[in-house]
Amino acid sequence: MPESETSLPEPGEFDIIRSVFRPLAAGQPGAFELTDDAACLMPPPGHEIVLTADAIVAGVHFLVDDPAEDVAVKLLGVNLSDLAAMGAEPLGYLITTAWPRPLDLAWIEGFGRGLAAAQDAFGIGLLGGDTVATNGPMTLSLTAIGSLPRGQALRRAGARPGDRICVSGTIGDAAAGLALLQGRLSDNDATRREFLIGRYRRPLPRLALGLALRGLATACIDVSDGLLADLGHILETSAVGAEIDLAAVPLSAADAGREDRLAAIAGGDDYELLFTVPADRLDELAAAANRGGVALHAIGRIVTGSGIVVRDEDGGPVTTERSGYRHF
Amino acid sequence: MPESETSLPEPGEFDIIRSVFRPLAAGQPGAFELTDDAACLMPPPGHEIVLTADAIVAGVHFLVDDPAEDVAVKLLGVNLSDLAAMGAEPLGYLITTAWPRPLDLAWIEGFGRGLAAAQDAFGIGLLGGDTVATNGPMTLSLTAIGSLPRGQALRRAGARPGDRICVSGTIGDAAAGLALLQGRLSDNDATRREFLIGRYRRPLPRLALGLALRGLATACIDVSDGLLADLGHILETSAVGAEIDLAAVPLSAADAGREDRLAAIAGGDDYELLFTVPADRLDELAAAANRGGVALHAIGRIVTGSGIVVRDEDGGPVTTERSGYRHF
Repeated sequence: MPESETSLPEPGEFDIIRSVFRPLAAGQPGAFELTDDAACLMPPPGHEIVLTADAIVAGVHFLVDDPAEDVAVKLLGVNLSDLAAMGAEPLGYLITTAWPRPLDLAWIEGFGRGLAAAQDAFGIGLLGGDTVATNGPMTLSLTAIGSLPRGQALRRAGARPGDRICVSGTIGDAAAGLALLQGRLSDNDATRREFLIGRYRRPLPRLALGLALRGLATACIDVSDGLLADLGHILETSAVGAEIDLAAVPLSAADAGREDRLAAIAGGDDYELLFTVPADRLDELAAAANRGGVALHAIGRIVTGSGIVVRDEDGGPVTTERSGYRHF
Repeated sequence: MPESETSLPEPGEFDIIRSVFRPLAAGQPGAFELTDDAACLMPPPGHEIVLTADAIVAGVHFLVDDPAEDVAVKLLGVNLSDLAAMGAEPLGYLITTAWPRPLDLAWIEGFGRGLAAAQDAFGIGLLGGDTVATNGPMTLSLTAIGSLPRGQALRRAGARPGDRICVSGTIGDAAAGLALLQGRLSDNDATRREFLIGRYRRPLPRLALGLALRGLATACIDVSDGLLADLGHILETSAVGAEIDLAAVPLSAADAGREDRLAAIAGGDDYELLFTVPADRLDELAAAANRGGVALHAIGRIVTGSGIVVRDEDGGPVTTERSGYRHF
């Protein structure tokens, strides 16, 4: 770019960026050590490619003082969570970074360490990308590439009346972790604080569960906007309604009350899988949970119609403003 | 995201964004009308996937008053140019946009029109992406996906001493167009002004030429940083040197002089293909040019050693500060 003289980092800084990113591509022969214009990738025979892209912005999707390692884990995690929701196995990723000037090279090195640890945990590597400078907030965009046997993708559109609604793990932890970091919530238990903040900063994509749900789940999504909002996406594309049993929503706190549960299903950033299963196949869920390495809970059922009714322990509908943010 | 209440556009604005982007995915069945967590794509049998990602930032890679349609053409064009340099055929793309607030919906609609025209011209469609808000400059990131028969990628590393160095089209137009827009250059010929500015704003990826060069070019790159800088990338990865005949560098101006040529090879944003061909296969270039729909020019040769010598018409080496920005 001719403007590079005034707007981009010095060549020496580019060298450092390269030294951070190039090792991340070492396990991907088709990345050509990031020397070429593009990367090559051969999908497994009979498999189709699965592609997703999500961007995160400092001050919006992560806090400006979140550790660089954790920001890397979150960026990769939220994208791999989308692959998990499709039932795909990850193959690799591309990353484009807009760094504020002056470059914080220590931060970038920490970001690289976070990517290295996360990609190793998922057995994937860097395929390419781009680095630009910005005078705005740090903006990080990632494209994750996965594959699955042709035609076996988990979709949002297959939920049918009678299906049970299930969710993995626990709900509301990340929203509570963010509230702790922002001082909107306090907790004197240091271990619990760390757990909740970790759930906000380092989402764990449920990839093994996504694979286990192939051929079993009739619809699937990952919980990013919040359980109610994301259930709404399934309902909208499947043209059905839902009933949720509030008491069945899994929370990590043993002493969780009604208000905690309502906050949890309205929160977000859980990156758990929310899916539907035919009622006569519920017994197969234990095996899926075992393969997925995570607890599963049935929290409601699909009904005809539209919209969500949240039911209290006595079966009566809950009316609350907190269950809002519906897309339909 | 729980922060969405304060930092993201209103739902009504999301609807408009969706109404802009969803039609772009209509021709891609695996994009699922952008309703799902990820897109599916089946590469042609025996083909490998080719992936590249480039970001552009307002005020850095395009001017803030460049037309929205042209910014879309540039964003898609610079990425497809990377596929062209690998000899790949494009299949689709994902896009992540960080829009400044308040959203300029007329601009976004213009951007959508530009994408629609460009993707139709190349026979591809939108596969997915993400939209976020930013309080910084507009930042647009695109991942382009293509394919090619396995093992046939054009690489940067294959240039050998004796190979001829060739380039498509004309060089220096985009840099001159940018200089016109920035008031660093003037031109009283309105037609010529429009041509040069168009070359800056609407790069045309040489996809047909890239295909024609498969099995013929020993190395290939697209000219983005500038002819000399990008030739440097080929030399570095191929571990060779080069001689360039300054008078042979193709410029669009019939009356171009020595200084014009020196500026042209130091400029950038040309998005022409720069490649090397064995000397005994030069006669095949005419057919490649015909299939590629663009003129080709031999401008020099690969030699042993390293670095670039630019030769004047009398064969003597040119020493100039403008031939700088070398990566080695």
